[in-house]
Amino acid sequence: MKAANYRGAKQIGIGESVAIPPGPGEVRLSVAYCGICGTDMHIYHGHMDQRVSLPQTIGHEVSAVVSELGDGVETVQVGDKVAVRPLMFGEAVSFDKGHAHVGKNLKFIGIDLPGGMQSSWTVPAYTLHKLPEGMPLSHGALVEPAAVAVHDVRLGKVRAGETCVVIGGGPIGLLIALVAKVKGARVVLSEVNESRLEFATKLGIEGVNPMRQNVVEKVSELTDGAMADCVFEVSGSAPGAEIMTELPNVRGRIVMVAIHPEPRPVNLFKFFWSEIQLIGVRLYEECDFDEAIELMGEGKLPLDQLITEIAPIEAVQATFEKIDANPDGIKYLIQCG
Amino acid sequence: MKAANYRGAKQIGIGESVAIPPGPGEVRLSVAYCGICGTDMHIYHGHMDQRVSLPQTIGHEVSAVVSELGDGVETVQVGDKVAVRPLMFGEAVSFDKGHAHVGKNLKFIGIDLPGGMQSSWTVPAYTLHKLPEGMPLSHGALVEPAAVAVHDVRLGKVRAGETCVVIGGGPIGLLIALVAKVKGARVVLSEVNESRLEFATKLGIEGVNPMRQNVVEKVSELTDGAMADCVFEVSGSAPGAEIMTELPNVRGRIVMVAIHPEPRPVNLFKFFWSEIQLIGVRLYEECDFDEAIELMGEGKLPLDQLITEIAPIEAVQATFEKIDANPDGIKYLIQCG
Repeated sequence: MKAANYRGAKQIGIGESVAIPPGPGEVRLSVAYCGICGTDMHIYHGHMDQRVSLPQTIGHEVSAVVSELGDGVETVQVGDKVAVRPLMFGEAVSFDKGHAHVGKNLKFIGIDLPGGMQSSWTVPAYTLHKLPEGMPLSHGALVEPAAVAVHDVRLGKVRAGETCVVIGGGPIGLLIALVAKVKGARVVLSEVNESRLEFATKLGIEGVNPMRQNVVEKVSELTDGAMADCVFEVSGSAPGAEIMTELPNVRGRIVMVAIHPEPRPVNLFKFFWSEIQLIGVRLYEECDFDEAIELMGEGKLPLDQLITEIAPIEAVQATFEKIDANPDGIKYLIQCG
Repeated sequence: MKAANYRGAKQIGIGESVAIPPGPGEVRLSVAYCGICGTDMHIYHGHMDQRVSLPQTIGHEVSAVVSELGDGVETVQVGDKVAVRPLMFGEAVSFDKGHAHVGKNLKFIGIDLPGGMQSSWTVPAYTLHKLPEGMPLSHGALVEPAAVAVHDVRLGKVRAGETCVVIGGGPIGLLIALVAKVKGARVVLSEVNESRLEFATKLGIEGVNPMRQNVVEKVSELTDGAMADCVFEVSGSAPGAEIMTELPNVRGRIVMVAIHPEPRPVNLFKFFWSEIQLIGVRLYEECDFDEAIELMGEGKLPLDQLITEIAPIEAVQATFEKIDANPDGIKYLIQCG
């Protein structure tokens, strides 16, 4: 019964995971795996100390087995394998227009509330999505990042036969590229890290390194001048914000996935000239988890290849340090059970 | 038979309008009125010399009467009153996705080709939209700018009951505000010019001066914190690009109407955080002209109030000078017939 607790910049300690009896509408889980996300790395680096209370059990990419049901829970049973959609909704307000996942009273479990990098975790039943019987629990920990990609591709309205460019080939960029390919799109990935580019190539994704090649020329060449129907900005970088407007064709879409910490110079003229659109995306909605689980259950995503390493919870500090030292890795999982 | 010809920065001369016999599919018009647009002012200031050949008959906000039909024209008859959609389409290319009005081979009549500020003008028949019998030809010259507003409001997906903020209260900003009100939206106009604000108030549009008041606070106050569903950036200014991201609520839309001549710092984080969208808009499509004529025919726009002055074509140079000197004016028409 262990928990990985953030204790201040670059310190993740091992504490006790206390089994909290589930209240009405809640479920107690035995956590199997918890993935480490870019947001967890931000917390680890101390960049989110204003939002995180110390010590805080972090983690939100969880697969688990249901251990105990609170009163009134009928959607899952003890023994069910589940993934967790780590969003807690407060009172609905009309101007959120039904989009509570980006709404005024959203709380993110694992940042604003204790997370899942622990043996025992109690959450609202409405956060749970059942996993197919045959899906390994290690794969189940990838449902959350896959749901991000499904959400982004859905809001980007990607259709079969379209050309997509993904700027930034980290775990989310790769998953977006993979999901867009499943939808029948042609995908070009722009990534500065050669190892990640090689890895993407192994997954069947066409890559270009903007440090070595002109991405705009490359996309023009690959598409006979037609350019991109949809561009995903996942890099969070100033060059990403600069190039994103050079790639779309008429009425093309740019999907803003990345967190840009400061205002960036953006060529607004291009929006006017070709009637392009910028579509902000964040997190996921219920249907995105359902679709991610469906795609994963059908074997449409190379899940084993995306898992770089599985580490025991005792090695959590070392694993965060390893991620910092190794920008080539994709997804690290912590075994919590 | 006169023509207003741009001859270089700040020089509009009067030349002869030569009656060009209409070729197959073309129509010769007797022009009644031609409005002066912001783009015409750009040409007048010499800012578009790279695109305009000298001397060039300018003007593209035209009402006219059909004078002569070329072979095969069956859509209009001699004597019909028409407005002109000043777009000439070259060969269609697939990656324009049917949006020829912003497509690769678009030519804008009045910039790339001779315009309508002349007595006689020959254009393709497909550019013509019939005006209702009872509509004064002076009103007909407002169809083109009204169609811009209809297009922008349509692409902004404005619905009844929504709150819109229009940043910039020139002719297009005012028309957008008016069309959005016709759609049943509540509209707040942000404009730095007090005379324009007063004028907007007379038209029933709620106004705020960002030099005197905090627009974000004002919109929050007016909407009980709900903020805007749709924001139209029509100012083309750096403060406009800064404030536009502060106004929308969850999944709110920003419609980019203005021409921003250089990249602007944009808060991309807000797109991510609240899943807001930026929608580029330019010109109009056929349906926008039809809708503009319908709204105008039904008396839903205060057309007489929007016309600041009607000047004879002989006074065209003086009229351009007057517009430069009088930022309070709205729409100046040149009488060409």
